[in-house]
Amino acid sequence: MAKRSFWAWGHESDEPTAEQMKTAAGELAKRYKVDLAPVTPPRSTDLSLRKPRITPPSSLAPICDSDDHDRAVHTYGRSFRDRIRAFNLDFPNPPDVVARPRNEEDVEAVLEWCSSSGYAAIPFGGGSSTVAGFEPPEGYEGIVTIDMEGLGRVLEIDDISRSARIQGGVYGPALEDQLRPHGFTLRHYPQSFEFSTLGGWIATRSGGHYATNQTHIDDMVESVRMVTPSGLWESRRLPGSGAGPSPDRIAIGSEGILGIITEAWMRIQARPVFRASAGVTFPTFASGAEATRRIVQTKLWPANCRLLDPVEAAAAAGMGGANALLLLGFESAEVPQGEFIRHAVDIAREAGGTIDEANIRISDGSGGSGGSSDGDTGRQGSVGAWRNSFLNAPYMKNHQAGLGFVTETMETAVTWDRWPNLDESVRAALQDALDRVCGGGTVSCRFTHVYTDGPAPYFTFEGMGRLGAELEMYAEIKQAASDAIMAAGGTITHHHAVGRLHRPWYDQQRPELFAQALKAVKRTLDPNGVLNPGLLIDA
Amino acid sequence: MAKRSFWAWGHESDEPTAEQMKTAAGELAKRYKVDLAPVTPPRSTDLSLRKPRITPPSSLAPICDSDDHDRAVHTYGRSFRDRIRAFNLDFPNPPDVVARPRNEEDVEAVLEWCSSSGYAAIPFGGGSSTVAGFEPPEGYEGIVTIDMEGLGRVLEIDDISRSARIQGGVYGPALEDQLRPHGFTLRHYPQSFEFSTLGGWIATRSGGHYATNQTHIDDMVESVRMVTPSGLWESRRLPGSGAGPSPDRIAIGSEGILGIITEAWMRIQARPVFRASAGVTFPTFASGAEATRRIVQTKLWPANCRLLDPVEAAAAAGMGGANALLLLGFESAEVPQGEFIRHAVDIAREAGGTIDEANIRISDGSGGSGGSSDGDTGRQGSVGAWRNSFLNAPYMKNHQAGLGFVTETMETAVTWDRWPNLDESVRAALQDALDRVCGGGTVSCRFTHVYTDGPAPYFTFEGMGRLGAELEMYAEIKQAASDAIMAAGGTITHHHAVGRLHRPWYDQQRPELFAQALKAVKRTLDPNGVLNPGLLIDA
Repeated sequence: MAKRSFWAWGHESDEPTAEQMKTAAGELAKRYKVDLAPVTPPRSTDLSLRKPRITPPSSLAPICDSDDHDRAVHTYGRSFRDRIRAFNLDFPNPPDVVARPRNEEDVEAVLEWCSSSGYAAIPFGGGSSTVAGFEPPEGYEGIVTIDMEGLGRVLEIDDISRSARIQGGVYGPALEDQLRPHGFTLRHYPQSFEFSTLGGWIATRSGGHYATNQTHIDDMVESVRMVTPSGLWESRRLPGSGAGPSPDRIAIGSEGILGIITEAWMRIQARPVFRASAGVTFPTFASGAEATRRIVQTKLWPANCRLLDPVEAAAAAGMGGANALLLLGFESAEVPQGEFIRHAVDIAREAGGTIDEANIRISDGSGGSGGSSDGDTGRQGSVGAWRNSFLNAPYMKNHQAGLGFVTETMETAVTWDRWPNLDESVRAALQDALDRVCGGGTVSCRFTHVYTDGPAPYFTFEGMGRLGAELEMYAEIKQAASDAIMAAGGTITHHHAVGRLHRPWYDQQRPELFAQALKAVKRTLDPNGVLNPGLLIDA
Repeated sequence: MAKRSFWAWGHESDEPTAEQMKTAAGELAKRYKVDLAPVTPPRSTDLSLRKPRITPPSSLAPICDSDDHDRAVHTYGRSFRDRIRAFNLDFPNPPDVVARPRNEEDVEAVLEWCSSSGYAAIPFGGGSSTVAGFEPPEGYEGIVTIDMEGLGRVLEIDDISRSARIQGGVYGPALEDQLRPHGFTLRHYPQSFEFSTLGGWIATRSGGHYATNQTHIDDMVESVRMVTPSGLWESRRLPGSGAGPSPDRIAIGSEGILGIITEAWMRIQARPVFRASAGVTFPTFASGAEATRRIVQTKLWPANCRLLDPVEAAAAAGMGGANALLLLGFESAEVPQGEFIRHAVDIAREAGGTIDEANIRISDGSGGSGGSSDGDTGRQGSVGAWRNSFLNAPYMKNHQAGLGFVTETMETAVTWDRWPNLDESVRAALQDALDRVCGGGTVSCRFTHVYTDGPAPYFTFEGMGRLGAELEMYAEIKQAASDAIMAAGGTITHHHAVGRLHRPWYDQQRPELFAQALKAVKRTLDPNGVLNPGLLIDA
């Protein structure tokens, strides 16, 4: 298995070459009119972590590791803060042990060890958290990070019900690889797809491929099996139920504080063969937003309905920088999608959008069996340009490391009535903070998901900071924008999760009584308070 | 305001006439080849309830009532057991006081009174529970039923986000009446629509009008405001969120044990003007089920996709008794639905269904503004016949009271792979119990809702019992069928809720650790354990 980079997105083989880093430095130097000296990235052999403070019991030794590289990989996710700290070899509080359960019994045994010893037990999926979702807590005598990669199989496929029983540690690509021979797909493609797992998606309420209708992983869960320090939690496999509050909805979004998701029955689907896509341009982001609202409220349920503001449209789809771009996509395993996209395009045109007929691409189903690597509708034109940019984005950030460059994304969701004000105030807060902190910078926005009652906007900001001061600079910008999101009625996260990063705003957002209720639930399931301490609530 | 009947479905004006009861007795006598003497229904003046054991504090006296009729109306819902007991004037444990809050402060005051006095506080919506959802518990020195009808207004409409802030006590018709002038509808039509409330729907995870996609009230909730003995619980209004486990999903389905839902922001929609409907016949229920599965898995999202077995098709839609009937309906405010229904009909025909072209009805939108009382597509042919039968069914049961007739419905949901076995075993359990207990009877089934991973079947059974022994006879049949549902992998309820009736099977169904977690939540929100004691969990 390829070795993961301890600081970059991807594997060690994805770490940038000196040439790539030089090119990135040159581009940023030109863009920001500064002198930038490219740096040499850190190497695995440079790591020197705190010695492990605890030793696993002999029964667990075969599944535990404590080498520096492994512990470094399991310390930080891949947020801006994480990448800076890892690049700087700044690992003051790594886990002491990385445990890799081979099966559910191993999970139980590791939790038992942690629970009886008072060691923090940190569930780890694919390591792509951008919210410090698995960063070890302070104040524990021992920290055991539980990497679930050993539970990576699709155990059972029910092709009649289009459901599959899947282990929590399976990565996105391996999951799809196991479903593909049966003609099925989960079709849940977060940007982290390559480096995230089913269990992680469920624990963080991941938002996936679909822009409308059932897109959160929440909607695809048929039942959850979770190991807790108090025992096994398994819900009945059901297509729908009205029997009390949903047990699954407590596990979904629990961010590792209640248990470790070892299996789930998931709703899967036939692989799409009929596709249609279109890229519609709008004179302004606001007119594009109005079109988007009308399309989603018409309930045509496009798979893709992403609106890029002029800055994003220029950067991601090669547009001129004056117009917004709405990317529309429809797909189905059974039904031609031409009529659907024509309805959506009609609505977009009525709302002021323009599109050449040639940029409405409709596949008749002969182009292949669908999936992420075959067929070409949605791979061409402005839609295709956006898609490549989307998948490549995390890798590109690797090239820009060590230069003092400050950049991050922030996502939220808000009702349509509050959206114009949120857009205005978050942009203002970001621009003001960038001006103050970095002496300028750029802000852009797109909609990643849309609902009948509001969009999920995704902001990107960047500015040139000072090498060595990036974390403080970032913190000031993040604080200003997060406060603005809260004040404008948004959520502190739509699909990145809460983690340690978003706790201060999450605490403002959720009902105080809900926090008390969740504490009571945690005391029941994790009486010694060892599971991912500090996430969502204080112990 | 019209006075509710204390025993029949509806108001006192809906109680059957002597002539109607005679007709019903004649029909049943003929069907079961027995002699049946029609009886005289009880009257309000016949009631003689236990004297109220408690007196409200003077501050609450203006909103409290204790007359016998009022307390009788608030003792039982409208299940078979409820109707028999009420008809027999059998009210051993009525509430002592019926409180009718005028506003949220009144709700708080009533809860404070109950909580400090240790009186059971029973939230009451529209009174149509079929699962003893508000039946007073034994063992309390005082019982206060809190009727929410005074909080019956739509407070705010956000036409941009298509959302409305609505008080929990609003009845279905009054809710639609307040949305209609604005061109909107919640479009949630459970069979109990006339006698159920928004707060009740949320507390019981009501299943509504739609057969596919977003049909549970769960999906329409944008935020919930709930008064608990520990204070106010209010979630942020959001179209979507990934911030921790959903607070709303704890309130949804809580069946009155955690708090009283005083308000919710609900997702509303434009009133449909384009409609299409079709009734497709199938040689067998199984072939109809296969067609239904293919249609729902194709994700065309019909609003109506109800499959009736031959017995139901004969009774509800005037069919001959040999064929199953699939009722399809599509609707939209913006988009003509002809293409959609033709796709669905094509799939149905491929799966062995037959339909005359004349029975595919497509409205071009000129027929009116939609809603439950205008337009006529879906009001004609087999679809229209079914619709009238559906809405009228609860009233018809009024006519059959006091004859020893045993009849009830049971609903569940199950994955497609388990469905054939569940159908077989539940029918067998019901028929066997009917044969044993009643010397025979009939069983029928329909799908009320369908999901990509399974249907929600709805069984109806009837047999002629012995007057005075109906409750024991019913209990034996219900037990046998519920055990069969559990054994076959179904849920004890898809949309009727748990209540006191389903507790034994619910306890088998939900994860034991979830029950412990829910107890911990209840202790947090309702420390004195006064809210609807005995529902879902033991205190």
